[in-house]
Amino acid sequence: MVGSVKTFSTEVDVNVEPLPEEFDPTAVVSEPLPPVVKNKTVVNGDEVEKRGREIVLGRNVHTMCLEVTEPDADDEVTGEREAYMASVLARYRKSLIERTKHHLGYPYNLDFDYGALGQLQHFSINNLGDPFIESNYGVHSRQFEVGVLDWFARLWELEKNEYWGYITNCGTEGNLHGILIGREVFPDGILYASRESHYSIFKAARMYRMECIKVDTLVSGEIDCTHFKEKLLLNKDKPAIINVNIGTTVKGAVDDLDLVIKTLEETGFSHDRFYIHCDGALFGLMMPFVKLAPKVTFKKPIGSVSVSGHKFVGCPMPCGVQITRLEHINALSRNVEYLASRDATIMGSRNGHAPIFLWYTLNRKGYRGFRKEVQKCLRNAHYLKDRLRAAGIGAMLNELSSTVVFERPQDEEFVRRWQLACQGNIAHVVVMPNITIEKLDDFLNELVEKRSTWYPDGKLQSPCIAAELGEDCCACACHK
Amino acid sequence: MVGSVKTFSTEVDVNVEPLPEEFDPTAVVSEPLPPVVKNKTVVNGDEVEKRGREIVLGRNVHTMCLEVTEPDADDEVTGEREAYMASVLARYRKSLIERTKHHLGYPYNLDFDYGALGQLQHFSINNLGDPFIESNYGVHSRQFEVGVLDWFARLWELEKNEYWGYITNCGTEGNLHGILIGREVFPDGILYASRESHYSIFKAARMYRMECIKVDTLVSGEIDCTHFKEKLLLNKDKPAIINVNIGTTVKGAVDDLDLVIKTLEETGFSHDRFYIHCDGALFGLMMPFVKLAPKVTFKKPIGSVSVSGHKFVGCPMPCGVQITRLEHINALSRNVEYLASRDATIMGSRNGHAPIFLWYTLNRKGYRGFRKEVQKCLRNAHYLKDRLRAAGIGAMLNELSSTVVFERPQDEEFVRRWQLACQGNIAHVVVMPNITIEKLDDFLNELVEKRSTWYPDGKLQSPCIAAELGEDCCACACHK
Repeated sequence: MVGSVKTFSTEVDVNVEPLPEEFDPTAVVSEPLPPVVKNKTVVNGDEVEKRGREIVLGRNVHTMCLEVTEPDADDEVTGEREAYMASVLARYRKSLIERTKHHLGYPYNLDFDYGALGQLQHFSINNLGDPFIESNYGVHSRQFEVGVLDWFARLWELEKNEYWGYITNCGTEGNLHGILIGREVFPDGILYASRESHYSIFKAARMYRMECIKVDTLVSGEIDCTHFKEKLLLNKDKPAIINVNIGTTVKGAVDDLDLVIKTLEETGFSHDRFYIHCDGALFGLMMPFVKLAPKVTFKKPIGSVSVSGHKFVGCPMPCGVQITRLEHINALSRNVEYLASRDATIMGSRNGHAPIFLWYTLNRKGYRGFRKEVQKCLRNAHYLKDRLRAAGIGAMLNELSSTVVFERPQDEEFVRRWQLACQGNIAHVVVMPNITIEKLDDFLNELVEKRSTWYPDGKLQSPCIAAELGEDCCACACHK
Repeated sequence: MVGSVKTFSTEVDVNVEPLPEEFDPTAVVSEPLPPVVKNKTVVNGDEVEKRGREIVLGRNVHTMCLEVTEPDADDEVTGEREAYMASVLARYRKSLIERTKHHLGYPYNLDFDYGALGQLQHFSINNLGDPFIESNYGVHSRQFEVGVLDWFARLWELEKNEYWGYITNCGTEGNLHGILIGREVFPDGILYASRESHYSIFKAARMYRMECIKVDTLVSGEIDCTHFKEKLLLNKDKPAIINVNIGTTVKGAVDDLDLVIKTLEETGFSHDRFYIHCDGALFGLMMPFVKLAPKVTFKKPIGSVSVSGHKFVGCPMPCGVQITRLEHINALSRNVEYLASRDATIMGSRNGHAPIFLWYTLNRKGYRGFRKEVQKCLRNAHYLKDRLRAAGIGAMLNELSSTVVFERPQDEEFVRRWQLACQGNIAHVVVMPNITIEKLDDFLNELVEKRSTWYPDGKLQSPCIAAELGEDCCACACHK
């Protein structure tokens, strides 16, 4: 059950997190939390501790969970059950408020107000299958969904009659879909993805039984196109399917789309021999509003773009948007002889509430509103990086990014309290629209104060993070 | 864009459904609905019309959708935008009420009251990754999720320390997961599934690049184990991965799990050479409460069971439950060397609201409550079948099922109004807890009345549905 973690992913970083104290509705939790297992690993000949990077299976999970119990025969009369459930929910709500307040490490915009949509919670809204093919099931929200898709297609410059897309359950579904199209277009294609790509890309390769080549990254986290070129030259006989990151999970690095395309062209890959999927889960919606960013547009030879809806937009449930070229979907359908109809989505039943949330926010904010929020995020991210540096803490911020990477705090309790995502020696904060200067100040003040207690003899020592972020960003004794 | 539909699936039956009249917030819909394309097909040497089985791409979809427009600079001052959006939502709500009322063809229980959970809509609840491995992201509902999973594991008789599972986005995700485990356990295994299996099973085969053998069905819709045996004998050298339907999509047929296992054993497949996934999307939660049903239990050599949460339980968004043996997940993880941790779910970010809805309902109803509802559904389904027969309408009801199959109404408008799912000459009603005798009476009275106008010269003629349902269930001139 306990294994070492070899690579990083924000989404599966694995510390056992205790439920907040106030949220113990049963008070029967007798089993203590399992201790965090410390693994040893060998780095440069030295045995060092791999802090907090171990998988600890939640052995306590069954005792700490909220058991479903059989109602007593007289529950309806006494109302005791209703009262119990109401109290559980009220305490849970309180813990959610607390946890939502202290939240920096995950790229979710928690600043939304969907009061007007509360009235829709009573309906089972389901956009079965393809958004462009109506189902007889009438309780759907396709009219909102297609409105949202049109908006994104316009953003990425693909005509209404040339695109196809749908609202997904999460970033992973968008990636699974994009890579699947690539494979259907090029059944013997090789998947190329940088090492710092989201883990769902490698999951897709395995699920789809595709050959997959991991490409090295620069210290910024961007794909290393020199290495990419080498790999392409070794495999010129097979078409290329490439995942391009518009914001990597850890460092928020944006792969240089133009350079990727140029590399393909220079190695002799004509446009009909490669397929590019852009994983814009994190910054897909931010990049269009950043002046110097390499533009993500279907005017370039790309095949699909996906973005998460619960991240920058903000939405109470995970969701995403996937846009691709209609011609690819038609190719996909032609291959699917055994299916009832064009079955182009990964999931069958699809959440019909998410499109309404997205429609609501896009309508309220508009392109102008998003531009303003992007600017605010980038400004605040710079503020955070500058203050970290001023406090003698090694930190990095990629030019096109609102992800601030810095030395990992030494105290797991602090990491949990601020819900930081960590990898080895580094941690990050993703500055979303709900992260204000005030919240950053609270965090910084607490970090600086706590930090002075984390090092023996009161002597502040910055850990070396040059391997992860480069010497320029490191504040250790050797590099500062 | 227009192709013929070769097989059936409720979830992708493809008629263009106009939005309800009252729900046209923009009144600019100038493009007429595309006509329903009539295809011809050859049956027994005669060219016949394949009514309503064509894919019509919603060409109107972009004009009928709710466009996202850029706010005017003074919108915040005038409040016009808020007023517009509120009016769109109010009209949409009205149409949802209307559409929810007339709803018979899809197996969704629309009878729920989640008022108490409205307070949670303001939170971005996300159960990232594995439910049994905590994430640093604190705004989750794993404690509810594991409670629900424990309940289902108990229902299907698997010990807490021997099961693994998670709450999925829909029935399809459960099937994709179950088949993927099967493939990871037996990388060269052949997938066997009856022709009437849900289309997601065949989608899985294609996605996962698995060899797939379609097995014939009996007229009831159950898998034909004689044919299954023939196929097994021809492929004895490769392990078998079998999808067993606990309720097929169209006829609600329950495959005989015991006979499937017996067939495997008799053809020399020992327990370590097959993997059974039970697709219980439709009736997985009903069967345990039906006395004579072949029991779905992990005491038999099965590998996984999935069930939908938005069907019999009822939930405002699609969701499902997937339960498997922990040993399989451990095998899966051992194979995944490139991943950060045990990455055992299909999706990464996962909706944290759905587990709370399920937890709430299970707690309120309990096993006893579900038993009562199952009995009500079966009773009402018999009532519907008997009244159809009494009216001279051919109809079938499988013994363990609440899906009533009958001749397809001749009028597409009627089909849409009652949101019936259709395949060729047959239609069905899935009797869920929210389908009362009163609603069935309304439907029956309208059907009988309309039916008298559908046939030329006022002469009622029942179409022959013996091919689909067998002669006993047919009420045509030849068979009645």
